[in-house]
Amino acid sequence: MTDMDRSVLVPALTNLATRLRIDSVRSTSESASGHPTSCASAADIVAALFFAELRFDPKDPHHPAADRFVLSKGHAAPLLYAAWAEAGSFDRSELLKLREIGSDLEGHPTPRLPFVDVATGSLGQGICAAVGIALNARRITSDYRTYCLLGDGESAEGSVWEAAEVGAQDGLDNLCAITDVNGLGQSRPTMWQHDLEQFARRWSAFGWHAITIDGHDISQILDAFAEARATTGKPTMIVAGTVKGKGIGIAEGKEHWHGKAFKKGEEMDTVLAELERQFVPQSSDVDLVKAIRKPASRPASSSEPNSLTEPDYKLGDQVATREAYGAALAKLGAADSRVVALDADVKNSTFSDKFEKAFPDRFYENFIAEQVMIGSAMGLAARGAIPFPSTFAAFLTRAADFVRMLAISNLNVKLAGSHAGVSIGEDGPSQMALEDLAMFRAQPNFAVLYPCDAVSTEKLVAEMAAHPGPAYMRTSRPKTPVIYGPEETFEIGGLKVVRESDDDVATVVGAGVTLFEAIKAHDALKAEGIGIRVIDLYSLAPVAKKALVASGRATRGHIITVEDHYAAGGIGDAVSAAVSDAGIRVHRIAVREIPRSGKPEELLDRYGISSSHIVAAVKALK
Amino acid sequence: MTDMDRSVLVPALTNLATRLRIDSVRSTSESASGHPTSCASAADIVAALFFAELRFDPKDPHHPAADRFVLSKGHAAPLLYAAWAEAGSFDRSELLKLREIGSDLEGHPTPRLPFVDVATGSLGQGICAAVGIALNARRITSDYRTYCLLGDGESAEGSVWEAAEVGAQDGLDNLCAITDVNGLGQSRPTMWQHDLEQFARRWSAFGWHAITIDGHDISQILDAFAEARATTGKPTMIVAGTVKGKGIGIAEGKEHWHGKAFKKGEEMDTVLAELERQFVPQSSDVDLVKAIRKPASRPASSSEPNSLTEPDYKLGDQVATREAYGAALAKLGAADSRVVALDADVKNSTFSDKFEKAFPDRFYENFIAEQVMIGSAMGLAARGAIPFPSTFAAFLTRAADFVRMLAISNLNVKLAGSHAGVSIGEDGPSQMALEDLAMFRAQPNFAVLYPCDAVSTEKLVAEMAAHPGPAYMRTSRPKTPVIYGPEETFEIGGLKVVRESDDDVATVVGAGVTLFEAIKAHDALKAEGIGIRVIDLYSLAPVAKKALVASGRATRGHIITVEDHYAAGGIGDAVSAAVSDAGIRVHRIAVREIPRSGKPEELLDRYGISSSHIVAAVKALK
Repeated sequence: MTDMDRSVLVPALTNLATRLRIDSVRSTSESASGHPTSCASAADIVAALFFAELRFDPKDPHHPAADRFVLSKGHAAPLLYAAWAEAGSFDRSELLKLREIGSDLEGHPTPRLPFVDVATGSLGQGICAAVGIALNARRITSDYRTYCLLGDGESAEGSVWEAAEVGAQDGLDNLCAITDVNGLGQSRPTMWQHDLEQFARRWSAFGWHAITIDGHDISQILDAFAEARATTGKPTMIVAGTVKGKGIGIAEGKEHWHGKAFKKGEEMDTVLAELERQFVPQSSDVDLVKAIRKPASRPASSSEPNSLTEPDYKLGDQVATREAYGAALAKLGAADSRVVALDADVKNSTFSDKFEKAFPDRFYENFIAEQVMIGSAMGLAARGAIPFPSTFAAFLTRAADFVRMLAISNLNVKLAGSHAGVSIGEDGPSQMALEDLAMFRAQPNFAVLYPCDAVSTEKLVAEMAAHPGPAYMRTSRPKTPVIYGPEETFEIGGLKVVRESDDDVATVVGAGVTLFEAIKAHDALKAEGIGIRVIDLYSLAPVAKKALVASGRATRGHIITVEDHYAAGGIGDAVSAAVSDAGIRVHRIAVREIPRSGKPEELLDRYGISSSHIVAAVKALK
Repeated sequence: MTDMDRSVLVPALTNLATRLRIDSVRSTSESASGHPTSCASAADIVAALFFAELRFDPKDPHHPAADRFVLSKGHAAPLLYAAWAEAGSFDRSELLKLREIGSDLEGHPTPRLPFVDVATGSLGQGICAAVGIALNARRITSDYRTYCLLGDGESAEGSVWEAAEVGAQDGLDNLCAITDVNGLGQSRPTMWQHDLEQFARRWSAFGWHAITIDGHDISQILDAFAEARATTGKPTMIVAGTVKGKGIGIAEGKEHWHGKAFKKGEEMDTVLAELERQFVPQSSDVDLVKAIRKPASRPASSSEPNSLTEPDYKLGDQVATREAYGAALAKLGAADSRVVALDADVKNSTFSDKFEKAFPDRFYENFIAEQVMIGSAMGLAARGAIPFPSTFAAFLTRAADFVRMLAISNLNVKLAGSHAGVSIGEDGPSQMALEDLAMFRAQPNFAVLYPCDAVSTEKLVAEMAAHPGPAYMRTSRPKTPVIYGPEETFEIGGLKVVRESDDDVATVVGAGVTLFEAIKAHDALKAEGIGIRVIDLYSLAPVAKKALVASGRATRGHIITVEDHYAAGGIGDAVSAAVSDAGIRVHRIAVREIPRSGKPEELLDRYGISSSHIVAAVKALK
C-alpha cells in the first residue's frame, strides 16, 4: 500500500498496466501460444496490486514476511511474469523466452520460479493454496497478507467453494481474493457472464466480505484493496468486472480468442500499436518500483527439531497402524514446531486427533472438503510448514488433481490415508481404498510408504517428515501385532526380510495387513517342509530394486506379491517394475473385482489375498 | 403425492418414521456397525418422501417413469433399506442381514440393489448423480421427479456446489433436494451447525429455491415437497433442521455417537423400548403402502441403434485422435439416440463440439466443473443413456473419486481424455496427463483404450459405446498419420502387430504417439539390419495377455514398452502384468520426472520417449 497521491498514482498504474499488456502480447506472440486475452482482462488489477498494494522485495521473493500473491488463473502466467520483470526481479528480455524448453517461464507458473509458491494451471486450486498461505501467517505470527487472483470460469470448480468455506470459517482477514469476471470461458460465455452481483451474493453467503468493482478502474481497485485491509474477521472477495482482451480491439469482449496468441507480423504489430496509443500523459515522473513497500522484518525462524525417543511398543502389542500414525504425529509435533496437521472431519478415525489434543494451534479442520485440505497444505508447505493432511485413503482420491499439482509443485506435504483395502470390512467398497497406491506411485517424486506395525509406522512418520518433497503413508484399520523392536531402522527406499531359509522356493512380498498373511503362509508351508522368503515392502516408492532382484534370484526366480489393493498400480506393479528386466517371474495376488461389505477376514479370503491363497500360489509354482 | 387427509396422514407417517428408526437400530445393532443416529435424524423426511410423495412401484424399482430417490448421505443406508422393505420390495427379515457378506444390503448403498441408481458413501456425489437423473427425465420426456437427501456435513464437499451450479443453470425444477441439517459431523459439530438460514442463503445465492423447515415436523415436510413441486424454472433445496439420533435419548443431539451401533442387549433394548413408546394413536387404519401413487405409463423406449458406416479417412491423412474422437462421437450420436455428451468448457479442444453441433439437446455443458460432469453422467447412465463426458485427460483426475464410485456402480459411462502426455508441448505439466492410465487401469472393471490414429479411434469409440460398463479413451493433441484402412477391426482387449520379421530381437510396445516413435525406431534399426516387432497396444485393459506373451517369446524374451505417461501404472505395468509370470523381460521407457514446457518433439526427446531412446534400448539388450 503506497501513500502516493492518486492523481500521480492512477496514470502511472494505468501506463504500467498497458506495459503489462504489451509484454503479455509480445511474449505469447513470440512463443506462438498462450493466453494474451486472459492477461489483458487482469492487467489493471495486477498492476495496482503489485505496484501500490503488495509489500515485497523483488530481489528476494521468498522473504518470509513478504505479502504473497497466488495466480489461481494460471493461464495468465505471462502477466505474472511481466509484473515480476517490471518489478526488477529479472530482465525483461527473458519474457520473450516464454514457454521455451530452456526457460523457467513456463506456460503455467511452477515453483521453479522463485516467486511462485504453488504450481497453478489446473483451475480452482490456487485459492485453496492461498488459504494455506494465509493460515501460515498466523502460524509464524507474521502480518503478511495473501492475495489471490481467480478467473470467473474457474469459479465453477467446487474446490473454490471449499476454499470459501474454510477461509470464512477460519476468519482469514489476512486473505484477499479477486475474481476477474471477464465473462468468457474457453469455449463459450461463462455460466454467470457479467452478473457481478451473482458472484458477490455467493461469496457473501459463504461468509466473505464481497466488493464489486470495475476491474479496469484503477481507483476502484485501490479502494477495494484498502477496504479489504480494513476488514476484520473475514476474508474479502473483490468481484471485478472486466473485459477479456481489454485494450485489444480485435479480441476485446469477443468469443473464440481464448488461448490464442496474436500472430507475429501484422496482427501482433497492429495490436501493439493500439496498446501503445493507450499510454496516458503523466504529470510527474514516478518510480513505482522504487515505491514498492518492503516487507516487515523477518519473523524468528523455527528452532531446530529435537530428536525423537524410540517407540514405546512391545513385540506382540496389537496396534492399528492408523493409531500408531496418530501417536507418532503427536510425538513428532512435540519435536518439530514446523509440523502441522490437517483433517477432513475424520480425525477420530485417522487418529490425527492425538495431534490436535497436543497442538490445537497447529491443527486445521477442513470439515468434509478434501481438496481444500490438500490445497491449503500445499500453501502451508510453500511457506515452511511440514503439513500432514490425513483422511481415509479412499477419500484422498477426491483430491487426486491436487496430488498431481502437489507433485508438480514438489512441495513438502506428507499425506496419510487410513482404512486401506478390503480389510476395513463392513463399511463396503465406497470406504475401501484399493487404488490409492496406484495414484501416489504414479507421481515420479512421491515417496510411498506402507508400514505393517506400530514401530515401523512411527519410524516412517519421522522419515517422511525429514524427506524433502511429497510423501504418502498408507495405514490400515485392523489391529496388527508389533513385529519390530524399538531399535529397528527403516528408510525410505528400504525393505525388511522377515522370514528366510537356505532353501526358499519363492519370495513372497507383502505390506500392511498382507504381510501377516504372508507370515501365516510361511508357517503353514514350513510345516509341510516348504520354505519361502517373506519380505515386508514398507517402501513402495522408491523401491529397493537391488534387494528385490537379489531375493528373486535366491528363490528360484519367483516372486509372489500379495496386496490389499487392486491388481494394477500397487505392490505387484512396484515389484515387477523393479525386477522384470532381470527376468524374474512375478505372480500377483491382489483384489481383482469390486468388493462388497463383509467381515475383514471373510473379505481377505473371498477376494483372494489371504494366507491360503498364498499357500496355493506357492504350491502352483513350477 | 397423496391426497389423504393430513389428520390421518400425519400420525400414520409419524408411526412409520418410528418404525424406520426401529429397523435402523435393529439392523445396525445386529451387524454391530453402522450409523443409526444418522438414520434417526432423517427418518421423518424419508417416511414422508416414500409414503406420501414419491410415485413408484415397490415391486418394479427400475420403472422408467418412476420418481427417483438418491441417498447422497449413503451412510444412512439402513434407513433406505427399511423404507424399501416397508414399501414391500423385500421381506423385512432381510434387514437383519445388513452388512453381511451374503447380503446386498451393504454398509453403503450400491446398485447391486435394484432400487439404487448409483453407489453412494463417498459424500457429495449423490447430488451430482441426481442432477444427471433429472436431466435424463428431459431426455426421455418423462415427468418423473428426482429427490436427493444430503447430509449437512456432506455439504462441505465442493462437488455439492458444482451440482448446485449446474442444477440452477439447467433450470431443473424436476429436482428436489433435502439437506438433513443435524448439526453433527463424524468427529465434531459441522461447520454451520444448526444455522438453517446459512444453508438457505447459499442455495438461494446459487439459484435454487430454498425452503427451511423443521425436519421432524411431518406437515412442514409435506408442505415443502408440495412447494417444490409447484416451483418452476429452478430446483428446490429443502433445508431441514433435525436432531442427530432423534428419538434416542442417550444419543439425541450428542457428539461421539456418529457411526456407532447400539450394543445388542440392554443398550439396544432400552433404545427400542424408548422408540416403541413414541408410537402415536391413529384415528383410523390406513395402508400407506397401498396408497403409494404408481408411476405414469412407460415412456417409449429408444429405437435400436443403426449400424455405422466405415471411417472416411485415407492412409496417411494427418488427424489428431482427439479430433477423430469428436467426429466419431457425432457419427455415433446419429446412429444411437441413447448417446449423450458432457463437457467442462473445453469442447473446442476435445472436439466434443462436433457432437454439440449435431445434437444440442443431448449435449450437457458443465462449465469448469469436472466432478458434476462425471457425477451427472453416472445419473444419466443409471437411467439408460450412454454418456460420453470428456475433458483434458489431466483434468479427469479432478474427479478421480467419482471414477472410483463409477467403477463401484459399474455404470455405462464412457470417459474420454484429450491432451495426454508431454506431447501437448508448451502448456506445460499442469495440462499434461501423465497418470491418467494409472487412474483408470487401477479400476478392475474399466476398459482402457488408447488409439494412435483416426481409424482406430473411430472404431474404438463405437466399441466403447457397445461395451457394457465403464470405459476410458485417451486421445492425443498432435496430428498423427492414419495407418489403418477403413476395414480394419479393433476390439476391446485386442492389439495390432504393425511391424514384424522372422528375426526380431525384441518386441516394442507403444500406443498413441509413441507407436510412431516405435515405427521410426523400427525403420532406423532395420537400416542397420536389426529387426524389431512393433505392437500397437490400443487396449490397455483388458490387455491381450496371450498375444503379448507369444510376441515376447518370439522375440528372444524381450519386450520394450514406450509410453507418454509416467513409469508407474501405464503401458509398462500393463504389459508387465501380462507377461511377468512367464519370465519375459520387460524394459520400460516412460516419463520419469516432472516435465516442463517446450515443443512436443523436444519434450519427447528430453523425457526419453522418442525413437532414438528406443533404438538405444534395443541395442542395449543382452
